[in-house]
Amino acid sequence: MISKHVIVPRYQETDQMGVIHHSNYPIWYEEGRVRFCDAIGLPFDKIEQLGLRQAMIEMSSRFVQPAYFNQPLTLHTYLTEVGKVRLTFEYALYNDEDVCIHVGSTRLAWLDADLKPLNLAKAHPDLYTMLHEQVEHPRKH
Amino acid sequence: MISKHVIVPRYQETDQMGVIHHSNYPIWYEEGRVRFCDAIGLPFDKIEQLGLRQAMIEMSSRFVQPAYFNQPLTLHTYLTEVGKVRLTFEYALYNDEDVCIHVGSTRLAWLDADLKPLNLAKAHPDLYTMLHEQVEHPRKH
Amino acid sequence: MISKHVIVPRYQETDQMGVIHHSNYPIWYEEGRVRFCDAIGLPFDKIEQLGLRQAMIEMSSRFVQPAYFNQPLTLHTYLTEVGKVRLTFEYALYNDEDVCIHVGSTRLAWLDADLKPLNLAKAHPDLYTMLHEQVEHPRKH
Amino acid sequence: MISKHVIVPRYQETDQMGVIHHSNYPIWYEEGRVRFCDAIGLPFDKIEQLGLRQAMIEMSSRFVQPAYFNQPLTLHTYLTEVGKVRLTFEYALYNDEDVCIHVGSTRLAWLDADLKPLNLAKAHPDLYTMLHEQVEHPRKH
Repeated sequence: MISKHVIVPRYQETDQMGVIHHSNYPIWYEEGRVRFCDAIGLPFDKIEQLGLRQAMIEMSSRFVQPAYFNQPLTLHTYLTEVGKVRLTFEYALYNDEDVCIHVGSTRLAWLDADLKPLNLAKAHPDLYTMLHEQVEHPRKH
Repeated sequence: MISKHVIVPRYQETDQMGVIHHSNYPIWYEEGRVRFCDAIGLPFDKIEQLGLRQAMIEMSSRFVQPAYFNQPLTLHTYLTEVGKVRLTFEYALYNDEDVCIHVGSTRLAWLDADLKPLNLAKAHPDLYTMLHEQVEHPRKH
Repeated sequence: MISKHVIVPRYQETDQMGVIHHSNYPIWYEEGRVRFCDAIGLPFDKIEQLGLRQAMIEMSSRFVQPAYFNQPLTLHTYLTEVGKVRLTFEYALYNDEDVCIHVGSTRLAWLDADLKPLNLAKAHPDLYTMLHEQVEHPRKH
Repeated sequence: MISKHVIVPRYQETDQMGVIHHSNYPIWYEEGRVRFCDAIGLPFDKIEQLGLRQAMIEMSSRFVQPAYFNQPLTLHTYLTEVGKVRLTFEYALYNDEDVCIHVGSTRLAWLDADLKPLNLAKAHPDLYTMLHEQVEHPRKH
């Protein structure tokens, strides 16, 4: 599954260099994960109702071209790795000429409601299997 | 009591007009309330341990002069009104020439841990009295 | 003209009380103004190309009910006052049961590209007239 | 040179998991760079006056333990690599027990005032040399 959604950069997200400040991209990644999870029928609130939490453990970003206020971008969100205790999402951001201007990656760990590490394969084998089926890899840039 | 603390505007808080974006001032107000509450011996975590919450119900801001990246400001925080169910804080922001560049006001309501309205004068008469003693008014601009 | 657009609160916009933090609403107002200006054929980038800037001078907010992560809201944006040097926008935020959970107001001043005050009625009488025609008032709550 | 400064996480920086949201750390890194550049006598505004800009090109983060509202942290900022066109800063965040809870890295490229790539060693050999002398490496975790 690839989740695609449009992001219209906000004026508040600009900085005095006249571009979108780099700290906003991780917020967009998260919006991508939310849309992805909604699309596969596992929205964040259902995750929380199941007593599951996700903690960010690693994040990386590569900035190829700047983004600008009010110039729409399309964010592609991929689930690229599903381990027993961790999962990896990757992101690619395209401008209106379909040029990839940014890529990112986040690695998350499953936690229980007390924020203790959790083995999803044991605790929810059905979810673990379902997530596995969603794995897909982005085209290379 | 007047709480005074220095704010050094962050690069991330600028926008493409080259000034600090207006959405950051409410975040600074909150930092002012946190410092105020620390200073009177009622830190936010103690408030939460007492099963109390505060909900923002009204907020207003007047922008007199812009703020700039890395140019320190001093925020004065005042508790100006203590009612049984609501309290009002006011804020004044001074530049390094002691010119007031911004004023703000926030009105908060007391809630219990289930986020239901709470009468502080009944539930915690001691706190209510103590807060009353902290009331002070800003000099006029 | 009333501009209406959907806001899906982001996880990053929540706080540890489990609701959307109050500092996000002014960012949503701005998104409302951007959409409004796009809709009347006067997008922000055209405003900037004309050598015009807008400075926030007053802002006020009333919080009626909390907003929650991933629960869509509809923001209504109105231009309620067009003066020669200032203009006022008002905002009303509705949940999916059409209940108004929040209202806001912002007053902006016109500036030139050097961020000096500007009389729009003199500098751009056509724009001034056009904006006047967009004035509309929200239903009362 | 190691720049060390205290960060007091803001309430607005929390999320509904009760911890500091991961998107705030890159903002703290930037604050670290600002303090670092102030400390070596090359503040950001001087950089901009010299017609120089810095663009973020790569960023990575590793989250070891969560951060919490109002619990002070000390951010250590290091300049670890100075190339002709790029420079790398690294960051380590310590809690009040001197435990490292987070590390980060950012790679920036020098640009001119038109946001075109710039060879600092050619354009400002003195700055290039001075920066080289500030290189230092964090203790390993």
